[in-house]
Amino acid sequence: MKAILLVAHGSRRKQSNDEVLSIAEKLRNNCLQQYDIVNAAFLELAEVLIPDGIKKCVNDGATSIIVLPYFLNSGRHVVEDIPNVVSDTAVHYPEIDIKIAPHLGASDLMVDLLATSADTAKSEIT
Amino acid sequence: MKAILLVAHGSRRKQSNDEVLSIAEKLRNNCLQQYDIVNAAFLELAEVLIPDGIKKCVNDGATSIIVLPYFLNSGRHVVEDIPNVVSDTAVHYPEIDIKIAPHLGASDLMVDLLATSADTAKSEIT
Repeated sequence: MKAILLVAHGSRRKQSNDEVLSIAEKLRNNCLQQYDIVNAAFLELAEVLIPDGIKKCVNDGATSIIVLPYFLNSGRHVVEDIPNVVSDTAVHYPEIDIKIAPHLGASDLMVDLLATSADTAKSEIT
Repeated sequence: MKAILLVAHGSRRKQSNDEVLSIAEKLRNNCLQQYDIVNAAFLELAEVLIPDGIKKCVNDGATSIIVLPYFLNSGRHVVEDIPNVVSDTAVHYPEIDIKIAPHLGASDLMVDLLATSADTAKSEIT
């Protein structure tokens, strides 16, 4: 069974964390054909943290997990912190194939998303 | 002339700021038909800051500006800080129509972008 673990930074502001959970739910509903499990976790400041998020995917029956960083830039969190936590956790699950996807700013679709967001505001300009 | 001002948080890490400038350049090339000007600015920690970014758009000939927040969540920066700086700056340009677009996490395209990023990693799983 294939799983996605959406990983955001985590915030002291509950609404920001709830937005991540809401995006994960939309992703779950959108990817039913390709992924059996979609969970969310946080690097810090919010529950669940990445190790527990990976554990939950495994408990849900995952045989492979794609860790999907909900980050715009390739900063320290993306380049060092998330890979370190994932690799420290992965040693407990040697039978599970765990990969980390690129950060969002690396996607070709980002420019389309930006253009669409701009058009949302443009429609208000007379 | 219509302008987009892409506004990111700004980082002490030059590479993160350069990634924003690179995204702005891609957006510029992608939106030549709809927008005459695409510039970038930062909320803090990096140059140019938002007031100078707006000034540059006006100097480039903009008659309307869409401020496009390069932020994932509707945190304090999106809800308070950017609107406050934009509105403080806008009083100097009463003839320019300035609108703020939604943050990126609010876009319907975000789920498609996430699914595509996951597929990038999935293709590496045997």
